[in-house]
Amino acid sequence: MAIATLYDLDAALGRSRTASRALVQSDRDAGLLAMADALVAGAGVILEANEWDLEAERQRGTSEALVDRLALSVGRIEEIAEAVRQIAARPDPLNRVLDGWRIENGLSIRKVTVPFGVIGMIYESRPNVTVDAAALALKAGSASVLRGSSNALESNRVLVRLMREALVGVGLPADAVQLVDSPDRALVTDLLSARGKVDLIIPRGGASLIDHVVENAKVPVIETGVGNCHIYVDASADLDSAEAIVLNAKVQRPGVCNAVETLLVHQDVVASFLPGALRALAGAGVKLIGCERTRAIFPEVVQATKADWAEEYLDLKLAVRIVDSVASATEHINRYGSMHSEAIITEDRRSAMLFQEQVDAAAIFVNASTRFTDGFVFGFGAEIGISTQKLHARGPMGLEEMVTHKYLIDGEGQTRN
Amino acid sequence: MAIATLYDLDAALGRSRTASRALVQSDRDAGLLAMADALVAGAGVILEANEWDLEAERQRGTSEALVDRLALSVGRIEEIAEAVRQIAARPDPLNRVLDGWRIENGLSIRKVTVPFGVIGMIYESRPNVTVDAAALALKAGSASVLRGSSNALESNRVLVRLMREALVGVGLPADAVQLVDSPDRALVTDLLSARGKVDLIIPRGGASLIDHVVENAKVPVIETGVGNCHIYVDASADLDSAEAIVLNAKVQRPGVCNAVETLLVHQDVVASFLPGALRALAGAGVKLIGCERTRAIFPEVVQATKADWAEEYLDLKLAVRIVDSVASATEHINRYGSMHSEAIITEDRRSAMLFQEQVDAAAIFVNASTRFTDGFVFGFGAEIGISTQKLHARGPMGLEEMVTHKYLIDGEGQTRN
Repeated sequence: MAIATLYDLDAALGRSRTASRALVQSDRDAGLLAMADALVAGAGVILEANEWDLEAERQRGTSEALVDRLALSVGRIEEIAEAVRQIAARPDPLNRVLDGWRIENGLSIRKVTVPFGVIGMIYESRPNVTVDAAALALKAGSASVLRGSSNALESNRVLVRLMREALVGVGLPADAVQLVDSPDRALVTDLLSARGKVDLIIPRGGASLIDHVVENAKVPVIETGVGNCHIYVDASADLDSAEAIVLNAKVQRPGVCNAVETLLVHQDVVASFLPGALRALAGAGVKLIGCERTRAIFPEVVQATKADWAEEYLDLKLAVRIVDSVASATEHINRYGSMHSEAIITEDRRSAMLFQEQVDAAAIFVNASTRFTDGFVFGFGAEIGISTQKLHARGPMGLEEMVTHKYLIDGEGQTRN
Repeated sequence: MAIATLYDLDAALGRSRTASRALVQSDRDAGLLAMADALVAGAGVILEANEWDLEAERQRGTSEALVDRLALSVGRIEEIAEAVRQIAARPDPLNRVLDGWRIENGLSIRKVTVPFGVIGMIYESRPNVTVDAAALALKAGSASVLRGSSNALESNRVLVRLMREALVGVGLPADAVQLVDSPDRALVTDLLSARGKVDLIIPRGGASLIDHVVENAKVPVIETGVGNCHIYVDASADLDSAEAIVLNAKVQRPGVCNAVETLLVHQDVVASFLPGALRALAGAGVKLIGCERTRAIFPEVVQATKADWAEEYLDLKLAVRIVDSVASATEHINRYGSMHSEAIITEDRRSAMLFQEQVDAAAIFVNASTRFTDGFVFGFGAEIGISTQKLHARGPMGLEEMVTHKYLIDGEGQTRN
C-alpha cells in the first residue's frame, strides 16, 4: 500500500478519461506517425533502458532464453515503428454507420461506431506490446492505460515517455497513453475494479495472467490467447495432407496459441496414418504422449492423463488420442478445448459440416493448419489478440472490434403514446 | 449450504450444456409454439401457484401495489403466450453469414452466427420474465438457466414445468429450460462463478441486483437497465415541443428505465421556458428538485445534492439544472448519467451534432422523448433488455445480439510458412 500511494491510479484514470474525450475530433493518424518517428529517433535511450531491464533479469538468474524475450535492438525498434505506421494506414474504425433505418413515427435511427473511451491493457514481458497496444487503442479512439510486467518497466517507461512526447508534438493529449508506473501488484486489482473509469480490459499473456484478470475483473474483459487446439484426422482424410498439416501446426512455431496440442485420429486410419505421422513428429523433436489405445500400438508413447488433454503445452509436445467417430472427436474437443482453433482433416462433406457445426470454438478449419488463426492472416491488418470468449469479439480481434457503438435518433418532437 | 446441497447446480448446468448442443439442429420454433399453447392450457395451475406467492407476500405485510406486480391473470397469461408466439415468428438469428471472404492462399473464411450455449438469467419479481427469458434464449439456440426472485418461486416452478413438458412433447430436450429451484442465495454466487459452464449472464432488475451481478460475476455479463436519463433544452429549442417532450419523458411512465430523471436548461431560455414547464410538471404531480440557480428563481423547488444528480428516481420526481452551454450539459451527463438514453431539444444543427458526438450513452436523441429507447419501438421485435455497457450489445438488445459467432475456414491442405 505504501508504494501504491505514490502512484495515484484514480487520478491517472481521470486524466485518461479527459484525454479520451479529446481524441474523437483529433488527428489520431498524425499522432501514430509521430509516435513511430519518435521511437526510431529515440532508439538510443530505449536500448539504454532496455539494457537495465536485461541486466536486472540476468542478476535474478533468469535463463538467457527468457532474457532474450525482453531484448530490443535497433532492428526490432524499427519493426515496432513500422507496425505503428501500418496501423495509421488502416481505415478509421470510428464514425462508421453500421445500420440505419426510419421507424413508423418518423424517427430516424443510426447505429454508429464510437470509441470505448479508456482501455486497460494488462500484459507480460515483451516491451513491443506496450507500443502495439497503445497504437491500436489510439487508432480506435481510446486512451490506453498500460500495465506491463515489472521486468520490462524501464523499457516501458521510456517507450511511453517517447510516445507521449510525440502526441503532444502534434497537438494530441499526452494522457491518451499512460503507463501504470509502479510495480505494485495491488494496482492491477484496482485497475480491474475501476468500473466507470475503465471501459474495457484486455489481458495479453499466459493462462495464469488471463485467469487472474477474468477472476478479479469487475470491468468488462475480453479474454484472449489461451489455445488448447486440436486436429482431428477423419476416416476419409487425405493422409499425406493430414501429416503435413499436423507437422505444420505442431512444429512450425510451437510456442504460440494457435499451435496444435492434441491429435485425434479416427480408428479406421490408425494403421495407415499413425505410424508414419508419429515417426515424422518424433523426427522433428516432438515428445509424444497418448491414450491407452495409442500406447497399445506404440508402447514408447507416454501415457496421457486427463490433465494432459486440458493442457496448453506451448512446446514440442503432442497428445494423441484414437477416437471412434467425428462425434467422439467433437465431444473430446468441446470437453477439453479452450474454444480457440480446431481442425478436421477429411474428404467427407458430411464429416466436415458436422465438425464445423458441433465444435464450439472461435475458428474451425477444414483441411488447413490451425496456425492460420491470426488477425494479419485473416486480413484485419492488425490484431490486439485472439478472443476465446463469446462476448463482443471472438477469434482474431482487429481494430473493427476495438470500438463500440451508439444509436443516434433524430426526431421532430415525437413523444410516446 | 444445507439447502444448497439439495439443489445440485453443477449437475443442472451440465444438463443445460447437453441440451444446448441438441438445440442447434432442432425445430426451436415448434418448441416455442408448444410452450405458448401449454401456458394457455395450464392457466388454471399457473394461477393456483401464483395465488400461493401472492398470499405469502400478503402474509409478509407487502403493500398491495407491490403484491400486484407478482399477480397473473388469465388475460396476462394469454399476453405472455402471445409474446412467445411473436418470438417464434421472428427470423432465425442463427446460421447467418455475417461476412465471408477468401484470402491469398486460397482459404475461404466465413463468419457465422452461432448460439452462446448456456445463458443464465437473474431477475426480479414479475413471473412473466421467466417465460420471456426462456423463449428468447430458446429462439437464439441457447439453453436458459433461470434464477427468478424467491417471492415468485411457486409461479416460476409451474411456468417452467409447463414449458419443459411442452418441449419434450415436440422432441426438444426439457433441460433447454431450467429453473434454479431453490431460494438459497449462495446459488446466485455459484451461478455467477460458473466459468465454462455458463457462457453469458443477463441480469434484469433494479440497480442493486445489477450491481451485485457485475461485482461478483466471473462469467461474461451483459449489464442492463439502470437509466439515469437527461433532457437538455438548448438555447435554440422549440419551447412548446421541449415542454411536451419533457412531460412525456417524465410522466407517461415514470417507473421505467428510459424515463427522464434530470432536466438541463440553457440559461438563455430559463425565463421563456422554465416557468411554464415547471408549472406543467408540478400540475402533473411531479416533485421538483433543483440547482441553486433554479432555486433562486423558483424558491419552492427543493435543493438538489450531488447524490440527486446520480439517482434514478423511477418516480414522479425530476431534478432541474440550469447550464451555460451544450458543453456543460454534455459534461453533466457524462459525469452523472448511466449511459442509457439522453436527449437534446434544439433547432441548431451544430448543437445537435455536438451533443450526439460528445455524449457517451447508448441512445442519443435529438428532438424526441427518451421513452423511445425500446427494442420493440426500434423494430427488433423482441427485447431481452437495454444494455448500458459497451461490450457486445449496447442499447436495446434483441435476438440478433443474443447470439455469438464463429469463423469457419475451408482449405485444401494449406499449411503456414
